[in-house]
Amino acid sequence: MTSWLPTLKTATPEEGYALALKMARVAIKMTQPDDEIRGRLRPGYAESADALIASSQVVATHFATVAAANGYWNEGT
Amino acid sequence: MTSWLPTLKTATPEEGYALALKMARVAIKMTQPDDEIRGRLRPGYAESADALIASSQVVATHFATVAAANGYWNEGT
Amino acid sequence: MTSWLPTLKTATPEEGYALALKMARVAIKMTQPDDEIRGRLRPGYAESADALIASSQVVATHFATVAAANGYWNEGT
Amino acid sequence: MTSWLPTLKTATPEEGYALALKMARVAIKMTQPDDEIRGRLRPGYAESADALIASSQVVATHFATVAAANGYWNEGT
Amino acid sequence: MTSWLPTLKTATPEEGYALALKMARVAIKMTQPDDEIRGRLRPGYAESADALIASSQVVATHFATVAAANGYWNEGT
Amino acid sequence: MTSWLPTLKTATPEEGYALALKMARVAIKMTQPDDEIRGRLRPGYAESADALIASSQVVATHFATVAAANGYWNEGT
Repeated sequence: MTSWLPTLKTATPEEGYALALKMARVAIKMTQPDDEIRGRLRPGYAESADALIASSQVVATHFATVAAANGYWNEGT
Repeated sequence: MTSWLPTLKTATPEEGYALALKMARVAIKMTQPDDEIRGRLRPGYAESADALIASSQVVATHFATVAAANGYWNEGT
Repeated sequence: MTSWLPTLKTATPEEGYALALKMARVAIKMTQPDDEIRGRLRPGYAESADALIASSQVVATHFATVAAANGYWNEGT
Repeated sequence: MTSWLPTLKTATPEEGYALALKMARVAIKMTQPDDEIRGRLRPGYAESADALIASSQVVATHFATVAAANGYWNEGT
Repeated sequence: MTSWLPTLKTATPEEGYALALKMARVAIKMTQPDDEIRGRLRPGYAESADALIASSQVVATHFATVAAANGYWNEGT
Repeated sequence: MTSWLPTLKTATPEEGYALALKMARVAIKMTQPDDEIRGRLRPGYAESADALIASSQVVATHFATVAAANGYWNEGT
């Protein structure tokens, strides 16, 4: 079985940002594992400014971690 | 008696993420120890986009701590 | 007079987490010192999913500080 | 004129926590300098669980800064 | 194809702040890729004090990362 | 043209706090550049306890960055 999060290292900041986005979504999936219920919730939050901003906050928090893990991109590696 | 949090060290980022999820839940359990009340609240938040995003934020905060504790996974250990 | 917060050092992560929980509660007590009013508010938030998640967020923030203070548990001490 | 924030250094964690509480309040005072309006708002938030938890979150964020400024209390000083 | 985030390095704090603002917006765009829906949501949040403050919080979180990546502006570089 | 954010360095913690306040406000101005609309929103949030607390949270996040940039005030500089 492959891991969904084998490493925090990414080649570039952009890939690090994509990883942060994924990390934000996984917590939601683990708290509400039912695909059908998540599907029903999705329009509600993808069309709510407040929910979009709150999601962006979670991404920012994970990105801070990913960026630190990569030495703000691989200096001296 | 075993500890629910004997260490912040995990072998992999994925296990660290699972630990962060657990840490987020324990605060809720300690603030509302009544299983029955928590059971009643659960559908309400597992089916609310706002609550799921807020939960994901707590996980992100704990994950930052767990990741730092593991040197962003065990470099040089 | 004894201090409610003599040190941030704890023997274990679990004790650190308990300290973080205490730290989250003290701010509420200092902002609303009236025991009777806090008592009235308690059911309202201990039975609200949103309030429980927000409380868990405060604990996560304090835990990050306590964990850093303990070198993610006392390495080399 | 004396400064309201001459230093982030405190002798103890407890004093650091009190400073964090003060720092959280000053932003509110600077955003709403009218004493009378703040006085009117106060009952509303000191008797709202959500507002008390949100205030506690601000204190936690400032406490993290104060704790770092004090080397998690003055090690080697 | 050019990257939207080739580096976290900026020449000045002001450019770092502009980058943080961009980073906050990209998460919203990635969660709601439909330009038309985002266009519809925009007035709602650009005219809501709560949404503006929440957006400012996301910017603050990204700015912390960008500032760290630049050594709080390029000392010794 | 002068920069609104030429440096994160300040002589004192109090000046650092004032800078953090400014940084919190600029994101709002950049997201809603229309002075007239911001003017209309202002009473709404300066008289709302929730909005004042949320603003204070943004200031706390920026202050953490400014404090780190100043070595928690200029030690060894």
